[in-house]
Amino acid sequence: MIDPRVASGLRDLPPSLAIPRERLTTVFRGVFARAGFVPIETPHIERLEVLTGKGAGSEEVLRQIFDVTNKGGKPGELALRFDLTVPLARFIAKHVDTVGVPFKRYAIGSVFRGERPAKGRFREFTQCDVDIVGVDGPLADAEAVLAIHDALKAAGIPPFRIKLNHRAILDGLLETLGASERLPAVLRSLDKLDKIGRDKVIEELTGVRRRPEGQGESDAAAPCSPPEETECEPVLTPEQAARVLNFAEKGRGGLEVLDLAKIDPEAAAHPKAIAGVERLRQVVELAQAGGADPERIGVDLGLARGLDYYTGIILETVVLGWERFGSVASGGRYDNLAGLFTSRRLPGVGASIGLDRLLALLEEAGTLETRGTIAPVLVTWFPGVPGAVPLGLAARLRAVGVGAEVYPEPIAVGKQMGYGSQRGHRLGLIVGPDEVAARVFNLRDLARRDELKAIPWDRLESTIQHRLNLSEGAPA
Amino acid sequence: MIDPRVASGLRDLPPSLAIPRERLTTVFRGVFARAGFVPIETPHIERLEVLTGKGAGSEEVLRQIFDVTNKGGKPGELALRFDLTVPLARFIAKHVDTVGVPFKRYAIGSVFRGERPAKGRFREFTQCDVDIVGVDGPLADAEAVLAIHDALKAAGIPPFRIKLNHRAILDGLLETLGASERLPAVLRSLDKLDKIGRDKVIEELTGVRRRPEGQGESDAAAPCSPPEETECEPVLTPEQAARVLNFAEKGRGGLEVLDLAKIDPEAAAHPKAIAGVERLRQVVELAQAGGADPERIGVDLGLARGLDYYTGIILETVVLGWERFGSVASGGRYDNLAGLFTSRRLPGVGASIGLDRLLALLEEAGTLETRGTIAPVLVTWFPGVPGAVPLGLAARLRAVGVGAEVYPEPIAVGKQMGYGSQRGHRLGLIVGPDEVAARVFNLRDLARRDELKAIPWDRLESTIQHRLNLSEGAPA
Repeated sequence: MIDPRVASGLRDLPPSLAIPRERLTTVFRGVFARAGFVPIETPHIERLEVLTGKGAGSEEVLRQIFDVTNKGGKPGELALRFDLTVPLARFIAKHVDTVGVPFKRYAIGSVFRGERPAKGRFREFTQCDVDIVGVDGPLADAEAVLAIHDALKAAGIPPFRIKLNHRAILDGLLETLGASERLPAVLRSLDKLDKIGRDKVIEELTGVRRRPEGQGESDAAAPCSPPEETECEPVLTPEQAARVLNFAEKGRGGLEVLDLAKIDPEAAAHPKAIAGVERLRQVVELAQAGGADPERIGVDLGLARGLDYYTGIILETVVLGWERFGSVASGGRYDNLAGLFTSRRLPGVGASIGLDRLLALLEEAGTLETRGTIAPVLVTWFPGVPGAVPLGLAARLRAVGVGAEVYPEPIAVGKQMGYGSQRGHRLGLIVGPDEVAARVFNLRDLARRDELKAIPWDRLESTIQHRLNLSEGAPA
Repeated sequence: MIDPRVASGLRDLPPSLAIPRERLTTVFRGVFARAGFVPIETPHIERLEVLTGKGAGSEEVLRQIFDVTNKGGKPGELALRFDLTVPLARFIAKHVDTVGVPFKRYAIGSVFRGERPAKGRFREFTQCDVDIVGVDGPLADAEAVLAIHDALKAAGIPPFRIKLNHRAILDGLLETLGASERLPAVLRSLDKLDKIGRDKVIEELTGVRRRPEGQGESDAAAPCSPPEETECEPVLTPEQAARVLNFAEKGRGGLEVLDLAKIDPEAAAHPKAIAGVERLRQVVELAQAGGADPERIGVDLGLARGLDYYTGIILETVVLGWERFGSVASGGRYDNLAGLFTSRRLPGVGASIGLDRLLALLEEAGTLETRGTIAPVLVTWFPGVPGAVPLGLAARLRAVGVGAEVYPEPIAVGKQMGYGSQRGHRLGLIVGPDEVAARVFNLRDLARRDELKAIPWDRLESTIQHRLNLSEGAPA
């Protein structure tokens, strides 16, 4: 006998989790499509060199790649994708002449990373991406933000906040501090502000760093320079760190925080910061014109996003009260999305909803409806009733769009109803031999716990639809 | 620069193919859910031993498995799933106590087989599966057939025919011929009847077989016995083969062919055949009671399905006039679905739609709508118009469920309209500075090729919805 477990870091989704998951992806697809995005599909398997090209992924992600080989193939040629952005870059480089730009695509699919398994962290997870390729202007940035806003809102996610920043603003600040070469290290530390707090970030930025043994680059903070040193300078002086932290902490709010002069007059005068602020203002205003709730779109000037490849706006999304889950939707703009694969310059802006994290949050928040059925009606039948009767009644309901499951065997009706209650069916039809003779059925309302007797078959659809409207929203 | 090609046997789906594909899977999900099936998800990666357990897949499929390894892992532990049935068997063995039986699940997902690349044959393809676990009775068989019937019909597939058989009927015939130990070889040859024709099948069944060198078992016909022989007996005598072929050829039609005595009186009297015929009749009648068109459900007593693990009904589906594409949906019943993983007996019946084959057929039949957009409306805007105006108009349309794309930059309006015509948008809104001042817009009907001028903004939704109804079905 073979053990039916799944491999470490992977998991099965039973109906109670797969149903709400599918409901979310259906809502997301609808929102994306109504905004003019179109789907593409790329293989789960890519050529390894596509995934490991310089800048395609962080060193950490590259260490987590799953290699794929088949019997005839050589190892080291194929691998599983670790995100949907590198495949998009490859796709657009290959197909730009036929699909054209502007190109607005969405993609929802599994990606794979061999991370150390941990609670809530899986080696296969689903990303829901939107991207606009081939456009430099701010309206594309706003559409990416709107797609996330509209998708989360339509899905009924609890109050969330999309936090925006622009890379040029922190660039400007660092230049006024004379520390622009420290930017990557500053971004990496700032990225952890919400997780580890102000004091630890300052400690990280101002302390002497010791390079961890056997590792080319410390993940935590500044790379040493020259690279053979094992101890290196602090990233920033205490004065510089204080200004960075002041900037990050005061730079949170609505459009009013874009009045940078009130936060850091020197940075406010820097040309890069001025340009970044102007762009950010345009994007927020456009997103609001496109229907975004002002309280769901905010500015966070300390928002860093660890990834070095963003070149314009960056965004993260938190569900209010559930910030410890981290960002449920993130993204930003790249000047040159497909530079690994083509010499044609293709700017891009996009964002990605992390479906698994979002669902884990909803589950913990208790807002996930975990019914075990989609069909609201269960048709039960007595022994001695021909199967054609319950199946025929169910077919009539299905034909008018009402989900109707037929219990597949005429066991004791109490057991059939028990199945319905457990799965979460709202209504149970009952057909016994007497009912068949009289061409009627009985109806048990499993949500409201009452029963109607002897309803004629010709009132099937109207009765069920009426009852479903009554029990809509009732606990099942 | 890295070559943006995909690996051999894999492919990208541009929007013109991904859009109809998504439309189909959405229709399938809806049909399956309305019939009381619920989704589950299992990982793309399974433990290798789960996939290679005895009987999990044919030898051919096992040779095609893609191995998966990550940096920390040992090779030989993980692999990509090659179908959705083995993962279902593993899932139900693991989770039966929590999900319970009867268990009706659907799953739509990618599977992977390292087949030799050829036209229309891919190493990653999508299966759309329904299965009912834990039920022996005929109503479950009928529900599996109905799910395929209703899904293909709802998706608007051209006239198709689901062909049914029952394994016991051929068993009975072979026993009356005294050749029951030849059944696997007979099934393998019969399976090719439509492809290679009567004469070749007879030749295969009656000729002396030579075992291909270096291969444990010939794919083509009878395994030699004892296994070290390289030449072996014919599978059947010419008389036996003639009776098998007569049976297969006359056994095609509607319920009338279940009057077996007219085809082969001796087989008709065999208890196995009698039982098989009775079950098949019940299933066809139940499917019809459940709304199946009689002309779309047929009987084919020669239908073999090469797979040895079916134990009851088997089914295949052809699109009429496109039989050369082979079966687009197949399945059957197993007595013991999860026997590899649990000692608990769990019978199962299911079927799977091959999405890629179906789409390839529709594409070749010219019935695939390959529009490059889902949103019917494109909002175009002149330089000098604030982006907030087109985005605001689009937001109003999106809010009432009308897909509206905003061209992301105010380039020449003719170019924006060219983009709309090329993608297949039906309507193009035009907003210039004069229109903004007057709070109106112009509307170009790209399908009907006319233009309406100066429509007030407050008539936006009603005008667009009216026009979309008019142009519904018009060529874009």
